[in-house]
Amino acid sequence: MSFDRLIKKIIETRNPSVAGLDPDISQIPAFIREHAIRNYGETFEAAEQMLISFNTALIDALYDIVPAIKPQAAFYEMYGWHGMRALKYTIDYAKRLGMFVITDAKRGDIGSTMEAYSKAHLGAAKIGKTYHTAFGADALTVNAYLGSDAIAPLSEVCREKDKGIFVLCKTSNASSGELQDVDVSGRTVYEIMGDFCESWGGTEYGEYGYSHVGAVVGATYPQQLSDMRKRLPHTFFLVPGYGAQGSGAADVAGGFDDRGLGAIVNSSRGIMYAYKKQNRPESEFAEAARDEALRMRDEITALISL
Amino acid sequence: MSFDRLIKKIIETRNPSVAGLDPDISQIPAFIREHAIRNYGETFEAAEQMLISFNTALIDALYDIVPAIKPQAAFYEMYGWHGMRALKYTIDYAKRLGMFVITDAKRGDIGSTMEAYSKAHLGAAKIGKTYHTAFGADALTVNAYLGSDAIAPLSEVCREKDKGIFVLCKTSNASSGELQDVDVSGRTVYEIMGDFCESWGGTEYGEYGYSHVGAVVGATYPQQLSDMRKRLPHTFFLVPGYGAQGSGAADVAGGFDDRGLGAIVNSSRGIMYAYKKQNRPESEFAEAARDEALRMRDEITALISL
Repeated sequence: MSFDRLIKKIIETRNPSVAGLDPDISQIPAFIREHAIRNYGETFEAAEQMLISFNTALIDALYDIVPAIKPQAAFYEMYGWHGMRALKYTIDYAKRLGMFVITDAKRGDIGSTMEAYSKAHLGAAKIGKTYHTAFGADALTVNAYLGSDAIAPLSEVCREKDKGIFVLCKTSNASSGELQDVDVSGRTVYEIMGDFCESWGGTEYGEYGYSHVGAVVGATYPQQLSDMRKRLPHTFFLVPGYGAQGSGAADVAGGFDDRGLGAIVNSSRGIMYAYKKQNRPESEFAEAARDEALRMRDEITALISL
Repeated sequence: MSFDRLIKKIIETRNPSVAGLDPDISQIPAFIREHAIRNYGETFEAAEQMLISFNTALIDALYDIVPAIKPQAAFYEMYGWHGMRALKYTIDYAKRLGMFVITDAKRGDIGSTMEAYSKAHLGAAKIGKTYHTAFGADALTVNAYLGSDAIAPLSEVCREKDKGIFVLCKTSNASSGELQDVDVSGRTVYEIMGDFCESWGGTEYGEYGYSHVGAVVGATYPQQLSDMRKRLPHTFFLVPGYGAQGSGAADVAGGFDDRGLGAIVNSSRGIMYAYKKQNRPESEFAEAARDEALRMRDEITALISL
């Protein structure tokens, strides 16, 4: 019931970053796409094979230097149940290699429905007298527009199974301010949400002082990220927006505490399609991803005290 | 690019209600559960068969008197990809019988991810040169905490494929007010979100004056529902909270316009488990659901001018 497992992995790899796995099959190496289509035709089965081939090669290249992956559910859902089967395969594969898995699904609903989502993504479903794990991530991103009803069932699973959640506070996208920056008697909506995170996290902190309720705070708003770090001392941050969304190490540095902990920075497209930026042949996509992950690690750790 | 298809079905059936299909396998008739476990053991395959057997029997009993179904994604996701296959089966089955399908998934993310969700739930995914439909609902519920970036990709699909979205404004749960009722210089957060819905809907209204951007406004807050009806003249409402969540016809009446249009009221547990409330044998669960749907229809239409 804290982010200790994740933090230990971060310390072990000396790398506070997470590889986002949001594969767009039109962007992955052509040989993977063509191989799958030769096997299965232009079908969902082929898409499933593409996702699995691409993801497992990336995980093989990253697992010893990157503490976590963050699959984005949408990029699997778009291929129907075959895509969801690829999501499960990806999660299992990464966990077997010791990685921490954050499913980025941004779920948020009323209490009875949130119980079902918590079973889907963090816990297990009961069939007869047997429990089965549907997706089984270590942490889940959550949208709390519905208030604490959306959080309570997840906290229960987090306590039972040593899992965590990341609640959307200040997201990395351009229009995030339309609602999140609105001022409410001196506090913005994202600050209100952040204060809720501190409160939902309770007072049982882990070894490093963080609760099981984290927050999503984007790298694209560095001042807000740094302010939020000071404001929310027990809330671990998931920081999107680095790389393809335009932010660099200087933008994320304010998200860390004095020990260089307290945050994990995501890069998805920057790592997945590193071979393009590095002008390397498609066959080297996994090595290129590893090189980019190392570069990102070094760039960030140069600025923090981890 | 409007809710005309849904509204025509509502007029045709003279029934502004939608059957929520959020099946909890521990609540469904034992004979369905036992049959599936006999076939498949206590597995996800068995859960899939339970969901399909239960849902198709309900759809058979309802399709000529209820215009729409609303499957809640969480109750399928919790059974992994087998559950998602049951969701797809349910959607296809209801559509073949002419029902309008609202997938209640409350998705909300940054633009590139929302494109993937729009392909998953409303549009189609491209594999090679072939398009495939992952889930293929007629409308999707959406969480717009991330602002208009979360809406734009959906509006595009809605225009191309004559689909709709329902944006969460004032939800039906007890804690909805924690964020949604917060006052921002004279407007609540849910009113701000509602005003966004009017603006995101554009100015191309359908035959009945509604755009393709609807709103979720709960029956459990009848005064707010009635105020929002007046405030948002071009925004069609999805109204949860009737039945198991405690509201009745008088609470939803304010959600309709002068023609008895402008809203569709959801009942999930009230319809799915009607046989329990009616003290009827499990074998009559589908007939009991039909009787409850007719009772609900009559109770609501008695108070509106449809």
